[in-house]
Amino acid sequence: MTRGFYIGRFQPYHEGHHRMVEEIAEEVDELVLGIGSAGDSHTVHDPFTAGERIMMITKALVDLDLVTYPVPIEDLERNSVWVSHVRSMSPRFDVAYSNNPLVIQLFEEAGVEVRQSDMFNREELEGSAVRERMIEGEDWRSLVPAPVAEVIDEIDGIQRLQRVARSDTNDG
Amino acid sequence: MTRGFYIGRFQPYHEGHHRMVEEIAEEVDELVLGIGSAGDSHTVHDPFTAGERIMMITKALVDLDLVTYPVPIEDLERNSVWVSHVRSMSPRFDVAYSNNPLVIQLFEEAGVEVRQSDMFNREELEGSAVRERMIEGEDWRSLVPAPVAEVIDEIDGIQRLQRVARSDTNDG
Amino acid sequence: MTRGFYIGRFQPYHEGHHRMVEEIAEEVDELVLGIGSAGDSHTVHDPFTAGERIMMITKALVDLDLVTYPVPIEDLERNSVWVSHVRSMSPRFDVAYSNNPLVIQLFEEAGVEVRQSDMFNREELEGSAVRERMIEGEDWRSLVPAPVAEVIDEIDGIQRLQRVARSDTNDG
Amino acid sequence: MTRGFYIGRFQPYHEGHHRMVEEIAEEVDELVLGIGSAGDSHTVHDPFTAGERIMMITKALVDLDLVTYPVPIEDLERNSVWVSHVRSMSPRFDVAYSNNPLVIQLFEEAGVEVRQSDMFNREELEGSAVRERMIEGEDWRSLVPAPVAEVIDEIDGIQRLQRVARSDTNDG
Amino acid sequence: MTRGFYIGRFQPYHEGHHRMVEEIAEEVDELVLGIGSAGDSHTVHDPFTAGERIMMITKALVDLDLVTYPVPIEDLERNSVWVSHVRSMSPRFDVAYSNNPLVIQLFEEAGVEVRQSDMFNREELEGSAVRERMIEGEDWRSLVPAPVAEVIDEIDGIQRLQRVARSDTNDG
Amino acid sequence: MTRGFYIGRFQPYHEGHHRMVEEIAEEVDELVLGIGSAGDSHTVHDPFTAGERIMMITKALVDLDLVTYPVPIEDLERNSVWVSHVRSMSPRFDVAYSNNPLVIQLFEEAGVEVRQSDMFNREELEGSAVRERMIEGEDWRSLVPAPVAEVIDEIDGIQRLQRVARSDTNDG
Repeated sequence: MTRGFYIGRFQPYHEGHHRMVEEIAEEVDELVLGIGSAGDSHTVHDPFTAGERIMMITKALVDLDLVTYPVPIEDLERNSVWVSHVRSMSPRFDVAYSNNPLVIQLFEEAGVEVRQSDMFNREELEGSAVRERMIEGEDWRSLVPAPVAEVIDEIDGIQRLQRVARSDTNDG
Repeated sequence: MTRGFYIGRFQPYHEGHHRMVEEIAEEVDELVLGIGSAGDSHTVHDPFTAGERIMMITKALVDLDLVTYPVPIEDLERNSVWVSHVRSMSPRFDVAYSNNPLVIQLFEEAGVEVRQSDMFNREELEGSAVRERMIEGEDWRSLVPAPVAEVIDEIDGIQRLQRVARSDTNDG
Repeated sequence: MTRGFYIGRFQPYHEGHHRMVEEIAEEVDELVLGIGSAGDSHTVHDPFTAGERIMMITKALVDLDLVTYPVPIEDLERNSVWVSHVRSMSPRFDVAYSNNPLVIQLFEEAGVEVRQSDMFNREELEGSAVRERMIEGEDWRSLVPAPVAEVIDEIDGIQRLQRVARSDTNDG
Repeated sequence: MTRGFYIGRFQPYHEGHHRMVEEIAEEVDELVLGIGSAGDSHTVHDPFTAGERIMMITKALVDLDLVTYPVPIEDLERNSVWVSHVRSMSPRFDVAYSNNPLVIQLFEEAGVEVRQSDMFNREELEGSAVRERMIEGEDWRSLVPAPVAEVIDEIDGIQRLQRVARSDTNDG
Repeated sequence: MTRGFYIGRFQPYHEGHHRMVEEIAEEVDELVLGIGSAGDSHTVHDPFTAGERIMMITKALVDLDLVTYPVPIEDLERNSVWVSHVRSMSPRFDVAYSNNPLVIQLFEEAGVEVRQSDMFNREELEGSAVRERMIEGEDWRSLVPAPVAEVIDEIDGIQRLQRVARSDTNDG
Repeated sequence: MTRGFYIGRFQPYHEGHHRMVEEIAEEVDELVLGIGSAGDSHTVHDPFTAGERIMMITKALVDLDLVTYPVPIEDLERNSVWVSHVRSMSPRFDVAYSNNPLVIQLFEEAGVEVRQSDMFNREELEGSAVRERMIEGEDWRSLVPAPVAEVIDEIDGIQRLQRVARSDTNDG
């Protein structure tokens, strides 16, 4: 039995993440999805709560033939203990998946195997692109799995994001 | 669709918790299991990490016909914001299950419906009884679901608990 | 112009505190009431929120001929910076009033004048006595100023305290 | 009896804030002034301590015929619990005043009535304008109530702000 | 070159610690002394600041033929990341010395070699004995190296400890 | 006996710092080197852990005829208590050395003597220059004492810094 670990902020969980999970599913029996910056919400960078992101992931993965564990990971603001923190919050895993150079560095210093994928970079860029479209009122539904769009609609997510986007410009 | 929320520390997840979940399963379609004090571990009161407790719960509930979400909840050490914190970490829920007077008070002040059960008290007492037996080297396996015992064996959980129990007496 | 500083948890603000304020009022022109452990609430030791304690103090002092500033002081859990923290949260003051040996020690190490009063000890003991009576359903109204009793009634404070008191006995 | 809540950082309390308070005074009997980012000080964005800001507000409002409560609110760095935190620190209020989209969003998600005013935007912009003038040695006294200028003079506030402004450029 | 790590709270650094260091000195070339609970001070359990404890250790070890590094370690209140935290604060070390069961457990789970000594228990007990004598006004000087007594005298340490000891009894 | 205090982040300890220490050595008998932002590591701004920086400083100063204490200082994110925090972590000092306007302001408000030097500015600028060269693969060894280069080589510091530098560009 092999268990993988895949970390992201999932703001929101989009097609790029979904393709990654499908690719990883071919290599592992079970997959932990670490929901990073779990305590953050209601900002342009992190609009959705951890609970909302658990819903997105659970619903999007319901038909995938893979045991998955969505696990919120709160920030400790201290890179040197990050791997220990992740390990204490997550079921044990054998291999981590990431293309983020900091994440790779931290896992490797701790002796954890990391696998990369060309797909990651594209996926990362899509995160801010999706939020940008949400703010601008452009089409974002085609970039996320259908159940994710339902969750976002239920929580009035677009209005929330559009509002907090206006906050950033008049702080004074 | 009704979703319930059931909070506990699950140190470890034992038969008392399991009977509660089975009882709740008759009233709800989905159940969030909030894993309290998620950041605590390696003490007599809280020997297991959040990740280990997720494993216990997931394996113990695999055959139950109920959608469950085990969600670690880190302490914020501030009762006045506890309900908001729980809500942000958890999928939305309609009703909370607890017999703990503080939890009931906090949920009710926040306008959340709480249901109690006579079973809770017994279940709470069992938590420390199980840990006591583990420390004393007595039979504890009969008090937890079989998959939980497997998880505890895999992580050498009894040795860990017995060791930290000796720490409490010589603080210096 | 002399401004004094008087720290307490005010759980609740009672007649002992009130007599102290009246005594201090003879020595200063203005008085800051530092509300300690401002983040704590819903426990036997600290049942009321900072906001509720501000209400108690404000209403109890409305007829006193003294400019008062009730200022919540959150705990930093670090004695060595406590005086700096208090000073940053409070209007400047010339003299501190306390009979608590730790508070006296910290202020004196920081070069702040501290004045003591025989009245303090009695007042401190009254705090837990008032909460004990509230829990036991005995008369507590005679121990607090009338406007404080009104605030406690409005927020259903007795029920809250009685409930959380039951939590302490079954933690498991 | 209606009590309002008006949140700001008040760095410093200026004429824009003052006009807002006067406008709100026509709608409420009592007003809580929440002093945001209460733990921050000695930066270009937040030069004054919470205690200094309490002094500014208290002195500026002494002649206004309105019961006011200046209440420091420390940041919890977690939007999802912000409303609960504010409520625990503040006397109960019936309506919040803000033009900040994030604040509006958070209060509305929590079911609190929010009133906006065209005046807010102008007032927010004035905050950084006042600090800019202080740094550049230009006239800032005409932008704040006279008692606020006295507080700032007493604490050598201009020198402090000018110094910390120089820190931002050589961090190295 | 072998570097050891020896953790303690050193409240204060006493003859029991000193004998341990002398024993360890025969096995290692360099020794890190981790000063635990570095942020705590002014309590009966932890009367001295980290800076004061650095002074005690440095002066007591000045004549020992061993390279030593006294390193304050602040508590993170999270056992699962404690080893990573210690490692990030300390120069790299090859072996840890401890008789504390929790410390041993945490280091061993992280794959760090731990050496124990019969001497430890005695040393740990001496810590509270020294503080007890200080509080009671009995002889404590014979239990600590002479330079440690000098540091304690310079900072009026006995008065501080005696005062905070009185605080514990009237919390109210 | 005069003891000085010199604060820096020492990311890494370089020739500019070294010249400063040599200059200060002419004025004091002992010197505390406060290692700021001690909890930060693995970022472009703060690549090295506190433990690694202690090693750099200790090895670089081994031949200097001056008693030195390298002391990690974790951030408290609160300027108003920073001086108290520093004082609690450090052996007592008589004079602080800094050219940073914020540091000077905070020490002066707390009544601590601060000495400046024209050398500081140049030294501060060198910090980011050294890291820039490390990232770009240019010569950095000539800018740091030889023992510092050895420490950085031992911990594969250049690879770490180059990797985390790539993280900053694809956050999404």
